[in-house]
This record gives sequence, structure tokens and C-alpha cells, in this order.
Amino acid sequence: MIIIKIGGGAAIGEAAFRNFATDLRDLLDAGRTAVVIHGANAAFSQLSRQLDLPPVMVTSSSGRVSRYTDAATMDAMLMTYCGKVNKTLVGIMRAAGVDAVGLSGLDGGIAIGRRKPVLRGTVDGKARIFRDDHAGTIAQVDVRLIRLLLGNGYLPILTPPALGEEGVPINVDGDKLALALAAELGAEALLFFSDTPGLLRDVRDETSLVREIDAAAPESALAAASGRMVVKVEAALGAIAQGVGEVVFSDARAERPVSRALSGEGTVVRSTMTAAPSQF
Amino acid sequence: MIIIKIGGGAAIGEAAFRNFATDLRDLLDAGRTAVVIHGANAAFSQLSRQLDLPPVMVTSSSGRVSRYTDAATMDAMLMTYCGKVNKTLVGIMRAAGVDAVGLSGLDGGIAIGRRKPVLRGTVDGKARIFRDDHAGTIAQVDVRLIRLLLGNGYLPILTPPALGEEGVPINVDGDKLALALAAELGAEALLFFSDTPGLLRDVRDETSLVREIDAAAPESALAAASGRMVVKVEAALGAIAQGVGEVVFSDARAERPVSRALSGEGTVVRSTMTAAPSQF
Repeated sequence: MIIIKIGGGAAIGEAAFRNFATDLRDLLDAGRTAVVIHGANAAFSQLSRQLDLPPVMVTSSSGRVSRYTDAATMDAMLMTYCGKVNKTLVGIMRAAGVDAVGLSGLDGGIAIGRRKPVLRGTVDGKARIFRDDHAGTIAQVDVRLIRLLLGNGYLPILTPPALGEEGVPINVDGDKLALALAAELGAEALLFFSDTPGLLRDVRDETSLVREIDAAAPESALAAASGRMVVKVEAALGAIAQGVGEVVFSDARAERPVSRALSGEGTVVRSTMTAAPSQF
Repeated sequence: MIIIKIGGGAAIGEAAFRNFATDLRDLLDAGRTAVVIHGANAAFSQLSRQLDLPPVMVTSSSGRVSRYTDAATMDAMLMTYCGKVNKTLVGIMRAAGVDAVGLSGLDGGIAIGRRKPVLRGTVDGKARIFRDDHAGTIAQVDVRLIRLLLGNGYLPILTPPALGEEGVPINVDGDKLALALAAELGAEALLFFSDTPGLLRDVRDETSLVREIDAAAPESALAAASGRMVVKVEAALGAIAQGVGEVVFSDARAERPVSRALSGEGTVVRSTMTAAPSQF
């Protein structure tokens, strides 16, 4: 089982989707099993601008910055993630001969999200309280529907949001959704695709690619990492600890992106020691 | 098996969805099987206005008027039908205890659409040719995925568009999708819900409701019908001819809309003669 997360960057459009589709068709024909999770951040940002929904960034007392997701912003998320991008990807996959089925975290209760009843913090230095934030974390995943589809030859193509209380959609992180599903499904590989060759020591320099991180001794990699890369390395280490075979950060813009990542192109995170038992 | 088409009018919002959800939960608990198809026309029109995509109405040489669906308009359709409305309905159904799964006609190849390579006609009296129209007709339905979900206790919630050649989405009529699925699934009842009590002799007068149409002798009903109602009556007659038990046009704004329609409230179309053998 391979879990494939396709990032939602502006550089990852229909041409990239077609590369994923033909590559995946060949891998599925060869007997591999896969689940795809995708983002849609560029499409979401574009629609938010068109609908005049500027991002409201809230800084918590502990300094964490999060985007406040009101009901109109959640609608824009549903429209781009579950509508435009999910169905465009499904159409391209099907045209390549992949029996694709597009789903959100709400469908079949795949991902249950939890939100805080009240979001407190500062916006542009001013104290604010929001009571209808639609952002949250993944509380639980249910892979019953995914297993049913896989067992009948379908390729599930999943996307945030998750399902919250009273049926309200909850904005959850797509990378974390992929991680939770990889752990629950006991994936042999979890592949993260974005518009970079992998994890870079210097984000402005594509030649600074980190080729391998030993999950049993990640200290040097973490020491060299900064910003968003720390989050990604820690997420990968968490996946390995939960029994995922390997995590690869690789380039979504390659011609055969999945085959290439499986052959080790990008940043490979695995343990030189026997994998820890799954925490699930 | 009941096929439920929920119209996409502005009066059919979250409050109506909640009525459908509790009613359906009770009917499913009582052993009924159902498939829901929904529209999203009001949300689509609103987004089209917000994105400055005015409708381009093309009149063919035979006088038929159709909306030209360019790529940007199709994106707005994906966003509202498959994104906002489909997932809002799934969330509300799940909150009521229905194990709902939202899908478009693209997913699992449920509906295959066909479009004309070239759309010719006049727009505001001026001759025009369009080569990238995304509107078309349903060529084929495949209920394999729907049967799989029903057999495992899920409620499929479907919406246009359909899947065209090369994976391109095709704008098809939601009523016709419901009809094709009802015929293919051999439904005992096909229920159309909109923001009227049923078929009206006079659209401005809700007391002019047509209570019953005999599919074996529809001439008087057709003679009294006009405009959009003729299309609906002819569609209902076609469904009966294809083996659907009965067709009911009923009110989406009622408290228990499905139970009410099944008890005969609205316009009931059925045959006093033995049903004709299915043409499928």
C-alpha cells in the first residue's frame, strides 16, 4: 500500500496530474495498491481573492499563527478542494484508465475533525475572539470505506476537510490526513509531492537536497532543518514510529513522479533499525 | 429502492436538507433503500455572478436554447455542485445518522456524458460558433459503484456533472441523471423535489396542483401542461415506460418530504396498466 499526497501548489496543475495518472495506472496494473490525498491551496487562495475573503491570521498567546476559517471561507475550501481540484483530478485519472473515486474527509466519515469552541488571539496586534472557526485537528480516521473501494479495484482520491460535530466541515491539514491514513492502513510508503525536489537545507537552492534521513538517528537532520522543514521531518518521524515503512518527499513536477519517489529520488526517511511497533 | 432528486433552488437550503436527513434516516432504519441526486442551481448562479461569468444562452437553428458552458463556467459548476452543496448535504445527512457518501457523475464512471464537438447558434441574434462547450447529454450510466455502496449500508449522494472524453466534465441535467439511474436500478419510486407542491396547471397558483397523471392515458395532462411542465411530464412517462414504479413531483419544503411524497402528496404519475417491460 502506497499513500500519495499531492500538494496544492500553483505549479502542480493538470499537466502534473496527467503525469501522476499514467504513472499510477502502470503501477496499479503491476499490482500495487494506492490511495491519493491532494491539496488545493493555490486554487483556494485564488478563489478567496476573487470572492474578497482575505486571510485572517490569528496569533495565539503561545505565538502559534493559524488562519481563521469562517463559514464563507469554509465554503471556498469545499468549492476548491472537494469541487474543482478533486473532480479535475478524478477526470484526468479516469481518462488514463484509473478507476478513480473522489471523496472528502466527510464522506463515509473518513476523517473526524475537532475544533475549539472559541479561538482567541490577536489579529494585527489587536485582541480578538472568534466563535465560529472551522479550523481544527484530526481526531479520528475511519478507513472502512477506503478498504471497501480498494478491495473492489477503485482508487480513492481524498481531500480535506474533515467532518466535525453537527455535520460541520472542519479545515484540517492535508499532510496530517495523509499521515493518519498511512498509519491506519499500515502503508509501506508515504510519498509527499510538492514543487521542490524534496527537503532542502536552503529553500532557495534546489541542490541543497537532503537525500536521506535515518529515523533512528535524526538529530543531525533536525539540527540542519529550519521552519516548515522541521514540521515535515517531525511528521515523517512520527509516521515511521507508527509503522509506516518509509516516507519520501519528492518532486511533483517529474514525468513519472511516483515511480521516481519509490526508487528513492527525493528525501527518503526510513529507519536503519527494525521498525517500531505500530501505535495503533 | 427510492430515487430522490432534490432540486437546487434558492428555497432549498440547509433547513430543507435537515428535513430530508431526519426523514431519510427513519426510512432507512425501517429498511428502505435510497439514492439521492441533487442540483445546485441557485449556488451556481450566485457564484457565476460573483466570478463575473454571465450566462451565454445559445439558440440553435431548431430554436432550442441552451447555456454555453465554457471551462471557467464548468469550474464554477464543479465548485458548487460537487463542492459546496454536495458536501454540505453529506455533512447534514451524517449529523442525522445517515452513512452518506457524496459523489459526482465522474466518480467511478457513474455517468458518461457526450458533448457536441461544435456548438452553433445565435447569441443575441448574432451567429456564433463555440468549440469548447462542456454541456452535453448522458450517454451511459454505470451503477456498479452505487450498488457496492448500497450493499454496504451507505447512502450515495450524487450530483452532476458527468464524465466526458479525455476526462473532461460534462454539464448534464440533474433530472435526467435521476431518471437514468432510476431506470437502471429498477426503482419502485422516483421522487422529484422542488420548491412547489408538485406540477401546477398555473405556475403562479399553488392550488392548481395536478394530483395524479395516468401514464396509460396521459393525453389530458399533456394538453393542460405548458412550458417546463411538459418536459417533466414527458420525463416521468419515459421513466414509467422503462419500468420505474411511480414518479412523484413533490414539495422540498415539507417537514417529512420523502414520507409525504411516498404517501402520495404532490403529483403522482403511475400507470393503471401493467408496467411496460424495461427498455434496459
